[in-house]
Amino acid sequence: VFALERVRVLAPQHPEWRTTQPFQAILEGDQRALGRMTEHDFAAVIAATHADMTTTEFTQIVQRWLSDARHPRFQQPCTWCTYKPMVELLGFLRRNGFKTYIVSGGGADFIRAFSEITYGIPPEQVIGSTGKTRFEVGNRGADLVKLPEVTSIDDGPGKPVNIGERIGRRPILAFGNADGDLEMLQYVVGGRGPHLAALVHHDDEDREYAYDREGKRWGRLDKALDAAHAGGWTVVSMRSDWNVIFPTDNP
Amino acid sequence: VFALERVRVLAPQHPEWRTTQPFQAILEGDQRALGRMTEHDFAAVIAATHADMTTTEFTQIVQRWLSDARHPRFQQPCTWCTYKPMVELLGFLRRNGFKTYIVSGGGADFIRAFSEITYGIPPEQVIGSTGKTRFEVGNRGADLVKLPEVTSIDDGPGKPVNIGERIGRRPILAFGNADGDLEMLQYVVGGRGPHLAALVHHDDEDREYAYDREGKRWGRLDKALDAAHAGGWTVVSMRSDWNVIFPTDNP
Repeated sequence: VFALERVRVLAPQHPEWRTTQPFQAILEGDQRALGRMTEHDFAAVIAATHADMTTTEFTQIVQRWLSDARHPRFQQPCTWCTYKPMVELLGFLRRNGFKTYIVSGGGADFIRAFSEITYGIPPEQVIGSTGKTRFEVGNRGADLVKLPEVTSIDDGPGKPVNIGERIGRRPILAFGNADGDLEMLQYVVGGRGPHLAALVHHDDEDREYAYDREGKRWGRLDKALDAAHAGGWTVVSMRSDWNVIFPTDNP
Repeated sequence: VFALERVRVLAPQHPEWRTTQPFQAILEGDQRALGRMTEHDFAAVIAATHADMTTTEFTQIVQRWLSDARHPRFQQPCTWCTYKPMVELLGFLRRNGFKTYIVSGGGADFIRAFSEITYGIPPEQVIGSTGKTRFEVGNRGADLVKLPEVTSIDDGPGKPVNIGERIGRRPILAFGNADGDLEMLQYVVGGRGPHLAALVHHDDEDREYAYDREGKRWGRLDKALDAAHAGGWTVVSMRSDWNVIFPTDNP
């Protein structure tokens, strides 16, 4: 959502976007074209909207945007749209000696702007998609400038690859909610010691969303659901297992 | 040293190395050719010797090697050749709420095999040079296989770039000992809050080594020394400021 809005904000500086996909679709609000956006289209949007500013400036823009933005359906700040049971689980794990991470397909620098305040997870424990940066010593001080080139898409097999590169050891517990988490969960299950791989199943259209086999792009839970059934992994039903979803819900 | 020894161990499987630089120089012990090795030659050696095994296997090989290897000059395990004042500093910082990292030009997976036991720094707080990996679910279980392709050389401007990518915020304190640390120290000094950038100057040939302006390749301290003098950064003299160097020294 942030990236789409940035396309609109930056459009006057990019007249070519009016005739280039996927930017044209975003600017025209073309829902059909948006529905066809691939992971690489999405990466192009992220690259274009996150680039040409220092990481410090980027964090400020995200934090300013977050303080104003309201979730279109839930009409509250996006940072309040966390899943209460998951936030409770993170706290429980940390109180029991676990180090908790976010491993997301979203942009790492974007998530880092609110991860600590929202999930109690500091920036260095956020693994996400990344873009190239260049270190510059100049007018803007000594800082990292974001460049419009994606270096890593943290999705599918990219998740265990990035976990290995950044953390350097195999996780013993992971939750996923989409097919992009399958390889990460396989990596967890491949460990020799005790481990837990689990899926959160978005099956509550009334209180949140429902999707699985028919979901689009990143919101599909199909192969991972098969793997969970075959491997006896825990599948958490949002509808049946969670009495509250958002922190602001009444139980 | 580990990589050079791995070239000798793996040479029978790579007859082409006998006539390809830099491998030929290593196998023949050609000191002059070794002295001319560039950073990219070194990366090629790292890529070739660290590849084609799972990260789990690689860690085991390194740990086995470390338990046998003796430093050629100091005749003790390499993991004992730490700088006692630096290890004390790491402990002091951690006791005062700092999170400590190693940011090294060496291979991240190599350093991770001993960072916790040697420096009290867990694998996920090691930033180093990295190679590509592929996630595989197969005979060897679900694991990451190291591939012979370098993805990041953690040296010079690569240090702040990797710090930004992995940690996601600017360090407030860093020590360096070579020109490859200059940009990292500039990044620290560019922060708005309190910060400390410091250099350890290897100027004690009797007890350890001495090099600065005339050092070769990674062991040169020239531009960073100028920057330290110009910027008033702390320069620590191993000869004058450290009464012990190694943990086994008598003060």
